[in-house]
Amino acid sequence: MSTTQFSTESRGDQYKAKAYAAASATSPLALTTIPRREPGKDDVQIEILFCGVCHSDLHTVRSEWAGTVYPCVPGHEIVGRVTKVGSAVTKVKPGDIAAVGCMVDSDGSCSECQDGLEQFCPNEILTYNSPDRHLGGVTYGGYSDSIVVKEHFVLHIPSNLDLAGAAPLLCAGITTYSPMRHWGVTKGKKVGVVGLGGLGHMAVKFAHAFGAQVVVFTTSPSKKEDALRLGADEVVVSTDDNQIKKHIRSFDFIIDTISAEHDIDTYIQLLRRDGNITLVGAPPKPLAVSAFNLISGRCSLSGSPIGSIAETQEMLDFCGKHNITADVEVIPIQMVNKAYDRLLKSDVKYRFSIDMASLKSQ
Amino acid sequence: MSTTQFSTESRGDQYKAKAYAAASATSPLALTTIPRREPGKDDVQIEILFCGVCHSDLHTVRSEWAGTVYPCVPGHEIVGRVTKVGSAVTKVKPGDIAAVGCMVDSDGSCSECQDGLEQFCPNEILTYNSPDRHLGGVTYGGYSDSIVVKEHFVLHIPSNLDLAGAAPLLCAGITTYSPMRHWGVTKGKKVGVVGLGGLGHMAVKFAHAFGAQVVVFTTSPSKKEDALRLGADEVVVSTDDNQIKKHIRSFDFIIDTISAEHDIDTYIQLLRRDGNITLVGAPPKPLAVSAFNLISGRCSLSGSPIGSIAETQEMLDFCGKHNITADVEVIPIQMVNKAYDRLLKSDVKYRFSIDMASLKSQ
Repeated sequence: MSTTQFSTESRGDQYKAKAYAAASATSPLALTTIPRREPGKDDVQIEILFCGVCHSDLHTVRSEWAGTVYPCVPGHEIVGRVTKVGSAVTKVKPGDIAAVGCMVDSDGSCSECQDGLEQFCPNEILTYNSPDRHLGGVTYGGYSDSIVVKEHFVLHIPSNLDLAGAAPLLCAGITTYSPMRHWGVTKGKKVGVVGLGGLGHMAVKFAHAFGAQVVVFTTSPSKKEDALRLGADEVVVSTDDNQIKKHIRSFDFIIDTISAEHDIDTYIQLLRRDGNITLVGAPPKPLAVSAFNLISGRCSLSGSPIGSIAETQEMLDFCGKHNITADVEVIPIQMVNKAYDRLLKSDVKYRFSIDMASLKSQ
Repeated sequence: MSTTQFSTESRGDQYKAKAYAAASATSPLALTTIPRREPGKDDVQIEILFCGVCHSDLHTVRSEWAGTVYPCVPGHEIVGRVTKVGSAVTKVKPGDIAAVGCMVDSDGSCSECQDGLEQFCPNEILTYNSPDRHLGGVTYGGYSDSIVVKEHFVLHIPSNLDLAGAAPLLCAGITTYSPMRHWGVTKGKKVGVVGLGGLGHMAVKFAHAFGAQVVVFTTSPSKKEDALRLGADEVVVSTDDNQIKKHIRSFDFIIDTISAEHDIDTYIQLLRRDGNITLVGAPPKPLAVSAFNLISGRCSLSGSPIGSIAETQEMLDFCGKHNITADVEVIPIQMVNKAYDRLLKSDVKYRFSIDMASLKSQ
């Protein structure tokens, strides 16, 4: 894929936006300008106020996944204020607080889109590093002062939510909310959360808000107090076999947020009959799965990506009702490279949220 | 566990039955006599007419799974004629054709039993090599001239079914029927069957009878004609990547009957959104499962054991309605050791069914 979007050749009306971009897999993120399209009739222009830092940003920027096009502007946990709307837009108006998550477009015509599940559309356009059919090149994410997005992919943020803490709901939030809804987590169910990071801490908050009995599995005994504060009923140190054994065949649902190699059979054996464990982190190597535990309890191991636009709005509304946001450490954009280094050491409680006012002043 | 059931010490009224038993993991099956309890008030005594040969029989006899107690009398695909019933029995009467599958008892009081899912009861008593609470020692299976079973675990065989072919329904049948019902295989769904052996050929018959589009995956191109005859719409040679690729993301459900090591990711990538692949064979080593395919399609990998008594009866009634039986090679009991050798080479189309008249005459 070429990077002609940086040429002066215009494929449509556009303007320059400030952004932090990586010029290569080994370059730090640095200030640059990028083109954004002028809003068309179905488009919404948003002044970005906060953008969460997701581990996917780091993977993409450092080309740890295939196909990164440079310069790369990551960021798909976007909260901001609407500055302009196209003539056909009815969902938001200038001045509204709005949000954008991991997707900015889909074909609208496939069976997945018709089912309202845009996240499975084969032609889904991600918020960054996806083909940009308006300007050519690839899409640019939320480490920027503004973004222009098709109305359908713009979300409302309930007015009671802290905006810095709301930003991570757009990825970490929906990624954990969606599988819990899909697999029927409700009051009285016993839910396990494996890993207490950006995703895990959201999973704890949601499971608790759904009325479930929440058990957190962590390798770090030091996280116990925090897990309980976030809503866990119990914390199990996953390296302690005696603690694990007490929970054999007792879980209705487990959400596994670990993207490093780990022993999944440890958790599968904890599922009760018809229990499900869903992966939302993707370890680089295949997991070793024993058939026996799955067969004996008719259990299932599944995965889940983000959620649909409708479900993301449902999740945001649920957060408004229950006053749920991510626990964030707010940073200026100038700190983002340091934040990546700390992210690699899991040294964040629990999500970095970039205050984009810092970009305006640079 | 001791083998005191062979002592003359009686723990209840009992009689001697003829059976084929293995005296050790390396002994061939040979004629012996075993104790059977005299039917109590809830019991049904059955003269065994046919008993299917399941791969589990071989695993247990040769101590390939943990915990085999010798002498071992296998067999859990039992069809016969009721000869005596206890005073409280209402389900069958002497002269009726009846069947017994993989279970002969459960506690009846746990939540699984209360839900009518005896196959998940923690105190389930299997038809062979499980603790026998009546006579001590372990239970003895269907390679015998008779069996005595609690009424609840006795099943009706529709009168139109061939009895030799009906016997394998009790394990191979229900093991494939149950997960297809559980995961919603109905008319119009696309169903894959991996492996065309004892289980696989039953899966093809059921999926076809449910009205699904059935694709068989096999490593043996020579099985194509037979697969089509059994009800498959298409046969894919699983070692041919080009054939596999045509089916990417298209299956609603896949049943995997392979108990040898194999590449499960090949099949997971063939599932459409929310598709499920269920293991009914248990490979000895863990399967390598990539998280990516599960996550991107919200797919699931699960396992399934047998079915409940109610579901087994439902399956038998379904077989009666659709005239479904297993394709069997009927053998005398004296051939059973040779049959095991052939089973190891998958040299059977598709299940051995022992004609127990051969035992009577020995």
